[in-house]
Amino acid sequence: MATTMEKTYVVGMDIGGTNTVFGVVDSRGNILGTDSIKTGAYEQAEDYVAAVCERLMPLIEAHGGAEKFRGIGIGAPNANYYKGTIELAPNLPWKGIVPLGQMFKERTGIPTALTNDANAAAMGEMTYGAARGMKDFIMITLGTGVGSGIVINGQMVYGHDGFAGELGHSIVDSTPEARQCNCGRKGCLETYCSATGVARTAREVLVANAEPSLLREIPAEQITSKDVYDAAVRGDKLAIEIFQRTGEILGKALTNFIAFSSPEAIILFGGLIKAGDFIMKPIQEAIDKNIQPIFKGKAKLIISELKDADAAVLGASALGWEAK
Amino acid sequence: MATTMEKTYVVGMDIGGTNTVFGVVDSRGNILGTDSIKTGAYEQAEDYVAAVCERLMPLIEAHGGAEKFRGIGIGAPNANYYKGTIELAPNLPWKGIVPLGQMFKERTGIPTALTNDANAAAMGEMTYGAARGMKDFIMITLGTGVGSGIVINGQMVYGHDGFAGELGHSIVDSTPEARQCNCGRKGCLETYCSATGVARTAREVLVANAEPSLLREIPAEQITSKDVYDAAVRGDKLAIEIFQRTGEILGKALTNFIAFSSPEAIILFGGLIKAGDFIMKPIQEAIDKNIQPIFKGKAKLIISELKDADAAVLGASALGWEAK
Repeated sequence: MATTMEKTYVVGMDIGGTNTVFGVVDSRGNILGTDSIKTGAYEQAEDYVAAVCERLMPLIEAHGGAEKFRGIGIGAPNANYYKGTIELAPNLPWKGIVPLGQMFKERTGIPTALTNDANAAAMGEMTYGAARGMKDFIMITLGTGVGSGIVINGQMVYGHDGFAGELGHSIVDSTPEARQCNCGRKGCLETYCSATGVARTAREVLVANAEPSLLREIPAEQITSKDVYDAAVRGDKLAIEIFQRTGEILGKALTNFIAFSSPEAIILFGGLIKAGDFIMKPIQEAIDKNIQPIFKGKAKLIISELKDADAAVLGASALGWEAK
Repeated sequence: MATTMEKTYVVGMDIGGTNTVFGVVDSRGNILGTDSIKTGAYEQAEDYVAAVCERLMPLIEAHGGAEKFRGIGIGAPNANYYKGTIELAPNLPWKGIVPLGQMFKERTGIPTALTNDANAAAMGEMTYGAARGMKDFIMITLGTGVGSGIVINGQMVYGHDGFAGELGHSIVDSTPEARQCNCGRKGCLETYCSATGVARTAREVLVANAEPSLLREIPAEQITSKDVYDAAVRGDKLAIEIFQRTGEILGKALTNFIAFSSPEAIILFGGLIKAGDFIMKPIQEAIDKNIQPIFKGKAKLIISELKDADAAVLGASALGWEAK
């Protein structure tokens, strides 16, 4: 029967430094089942792929088996869309170049495509979220690091080598005092505007400033961006100042991105955005203050419409429909 | 006869703050005749268009008349590709929004398209120059200002409003000491890496430094980037230092652009590039030093293959073939 050959589902898989989450998604964007494993528990990529498949294959079987699946879409740091590889990823346990797409395809029999996690988030936003109908937008993910997915003329920007869209590593501070980044350089946006960047700013502000703060009750090295948010909610002046500084740096950086591709919107996603107006207002103010006259008031600053829990899997799944 | 209806030619027109140059170009990129007028002599856009057409129409007539022309392509600062307008151009005499495309179309009867001058240069490079066959590259024009034209997936990046590609206004210095830019902001790339930026650096270096220099023979306010080059050629240490600093700033900025779109090449064009190794070596060194590991050694740094005299008209003419 022809119907048994129909490719009804895709797998969306999000590979993070801590967890790998995967799910079965139908053509309407419904997540029909998910599971996860710990990424860091597998030093060898082969063992990792085997462990994922041990959990994934039952999900696939429960939805009619591999022949009902159009593709597997994977979002992962340092993923190369053109080659289906993960290359030199500092936050993943595997060194060098890992042909992850091919490895999953061989094990599952399903075509597999990879892109970086922020690109996957942008695809999710374009397919199911705030960017529906937009042809030019930039997605910025503010998590442990800062990622980005760029869409121009309705197409994901992969660049000549598949690695475009590393806006978290734009240099925003060129002074000798700029912060050291994990990428080996200094002054990258990510060192200021990620969750870890906010925690770092908190430690600096507390040292540089004698004012009382709720944050002083926490050992400096243990302060998280969540602590800063909790303190800000309780009216803590230094905590509010920390978000103010973070937003200023991000807003200024966004004006540079706007000067590049003049997007219709900048879509923000990730844990840091939960700080709400504490961070959003300084970002918007910094944009308004630093934007070139020709772009004034044009690019909308909006928050992702996808639920945190679903966004990564949904985004990656959108890529699954194009897998070859 | 069908042949008399064939659209054999285009007009390429480059509108600069000082001169407007235009020429008739055939489908092979041969420039068959050019003329020019002074842009600044016409305070009213109507008078300006009339003055251009007074010189342009005889050229058009000499090549078979308007019906032999496929289009007029115009490169101009702050040109809006989508609307055919020039908007808020600080270096042109006309204020507000000027519907230049429509004005030329009405006077000549030939479809007219506009884009900014750096986009036109990129189109020229893609059609006739160093970027033939490339799908992802960034053109940087280093003249009185710093312009850029970005090509991604084989398409010119216009952005949602037609103004994308303002890389000369990337903020490269966020400190309070950053240089004031004509655009109203501080720390723009253009204030450091244009011909005027080099002259500005020269004045600063001469004040900050007691060393002897050939440049001290010139009144500080009259120093040009050409003077700095001439001094560098004669082995002047401070002049060489000035190009070194300029190249460092530009190279660092280029790593940010590479992180955005991961181009196959960065193509440099304009007066400043005549400084040769004095500027090219520091640029390449700053790229190598500041590039993210994932992009190391990938994007080629190359010099435009188009002759200065022809590039602007050729680039703009490439747009003429698409005019509607």
